[in-house]
Amino acid sequence: MTDQTRPTIADVARRAGVSKGLVSFALNGRAGVAPDTRDRILSVAAEMGWSPSLRARSLSVGRSFACGLVIGRSPDVIAADPFFPSFIAGVEDEFSVSGQVLVLAAATPGRQEQETYRGLAADRRVDGVILSDLRADDPRIDLVASLGLAAVTLGVPAGPSPFTSVSVDDGAGIRLAVDHLADLGHTDIAHVAGPFAMLHGRHRAAAFEDAARARGIRTRVVETDFSAADGARATTSLLDADVPPTAIVYSNDNMAIAGLGTAQRRGLSVPRDLSITGFDDTELGRHLFPALTSVSTDARGWGAAAARALLQAIAGAEPETLALTDPVLRVRDSTAPPTRS
Amino acid sequence: MTDQTRPTIADVARRAGVSKGLVSFALNGRAGVAPDTRDRILSVAAEMGWSPSLRARSLSVGRSFACGLVIGRSPDVIAADPFFPSFIAGVEDEFSVSGQVLVLAAATPGRQEQETYRGLAADRRVDGVILSDLRADDPRIDLVASLGLAAVTLGVPAGPSPFTSVSVDDGAGIRLAVDHLADLGHTDIAHVAGPFAMLHGRHRAAAFEDAARARGIRTRVVETDFSAADGARATTSLLDADVPPTAIVYSNDNMAIAGLGTAQRRGLSVPRDLSITGFDDTELGRHLFPALTSVSTDARGWGAAAARALLQAIAGAEPETLALTDPVLRVRDSTAPPTRS
Repeated sequence: MTDQTRPTIADVARRAGVSKGLVSFALNGRAGVAPDTRDRILSVAAEMGWSPSLRARSLSVGRSFACGLVIGRSPDVIAADPFFPSFIAGVEDEFSVSGQVLVLAAATPGRQEQETYRGLAADRRVDGVILSDLRADDPRIDLVASLGLAAVTLGVPAGPSPFTSVSVDDGAGIRLAVDHLADLGHTDIAHVAGPFAMLHGRHRAAAFEDAARARGIRTRVVETDFSAADGARATTSLLDADVPPTAIVYSNDNMAIAGLGTAQRRGLSVPRDLSITGFDDTELGRHLFPALTSVSTDARGWGAAAARALLQAIAGAEPETLALTDPVLRVRDSTAPPTRS
Repeated sequence: MTDQTRPTIADVARRAGVSKGLVSFALNGRAGVAPDTRDRILSVAAEMGWSPSLRARSLSVGRSFACGLVIGRSPDVIAADPFFPSFIAGVEDEFSVSGQVLVLAAATPGRQEQETYRGLAADRRVDGVILSDLRADDPRIDLVASLGLAAVTLGVPAGPSPFTSVSVDDGAGIRLAVDHLADLGHTDIAHVAGPFAMLHGRHRAAAFEDAARARGIRTRVVETDFSAADGARATTSLLDADVPPTAIVYSNDNMAIAGLGTAQRRGLSVPRDLSITGFDDTELGRHLFPALTSVSTDARGWGAAAARALLQAIAGAEPETLALTDPVLRVRDSTAPPTRS
């Protein structure tokens, strides 16, 4: 889309000796760039032939100062999966400072979703969109590109993509949980997974199987819809087995908290009879008894990083593959050595 | 703002013998109106001189099909207070059907908030806004009215307002919790309240004091910021007293869940040593051990009702004072008679 004879943000960054992000910040007049750095960037850009007309794409009157997030699931998920509120809070951390607003919509995959993106693109109601819950063969990539919207994807798409991706290595977090349990002596660990139709649900389950195999651990995986109710049901089915697992790795905190309650209601003591790990490291999990051992991925920081990357893409930055810091495991009181070996 | 010689939605509703809501639904071509009812409403409206030009305010090309929610707190609250995700899910329940989008922003009260509303009103980026967390002397009412935006308020403002209010009687819910505990024999009950700067935080605390006084109960009230961390801190301070209360009424589920964990960590058994009630009736609370007794206010239904009322206001409906069904108390396993009298 960029005219080849004109300099790119990368060209300006190289010449000015600064990052591409800083260039787009300076060109967009956003806070956070020291005055003399800004002056240098602007003069280098002018020198190289960068002109307001090139900036038209991002700074014309058509700029809406709004970005979209279309959640491709039922509105349920906004209430049921704590990832989204944290992620949205992170987006607002960034947008509330830069005066952007977030346009939020829930639309189920298919015709309704397509129409929602078309509606957002019409009259430039948003400048760009965040694509979450990537699917195996995701039709949104081509759709959004053809609509001329800027975008960032959460995670690296399975196919080609013209957009910046902002990723967290979920798998690394799951491996930490499995290794922690294996180190404690567990040899029979179950995974309560998210829906396999979502790349992150599937990635976490695959990482679980890989990590467990590497440690010679017996595994079982139960697929859920990520809700607390489904987490409780999955826990019940696992604990009903003739030989139940001695530990369960949950794909989110919500399900882990419901699983903890389910186990305790059956008279089991956590962690003595069953070890439990969560994923998301929610505030609530820290205050439970026992406090939840959980994988911390900083959903809020992810939201802020995605928002920043999207603003840079809108400003004309070239696509990048951004990886956030690997998750860490917060070891608390819900994991211990198994009493049955 | 309405030309006095032209019929109002109320006039059309009276003549057609239907509700004002149904009239605005029919005039806006929205689903949910039986075809013959729609025909009758449209012919009555035409008869009375209602013309497309009168509908211009809502249906002109200036209509953005977007509504705004500016959260007047830090982005934290989106992640920390489960009311908002549930409420937003309810708004999306309604908007996802009618093709509207929600514009979400977080802006702290004062200059930043004012600029956010002005920005939304400029170029009609939204048709209307939902005003949440009403304050004692709320400057947003006059601001939004002067900007010419449609609006609904959550709760009845303390001063005059030209907008439809959509309310839930929080106080009724708190009274149910206090009466339930008093009926069980508790005579020393504490309240972990929300911030008094918010009308609903203050209302719930006042309702608690009133209900407790009516039952001759000893009370203490601790103010918090609604977060789980503050709920845990408040619980610790209450349990550190020489004579701790035998029951605690929390102003949201989040704090009640953190309070439950805090009590259990101190070796207390809930409900034997301490009874606990929540407020919001979140899905998670039902799966805890013990399952949480909680006031159910249907935040999601409130979101859907507010969204519907706002669409009607945008369509020209006159302001109303709408009260949703009173909250109910879901009695579960976290409350029991006190062992100490």
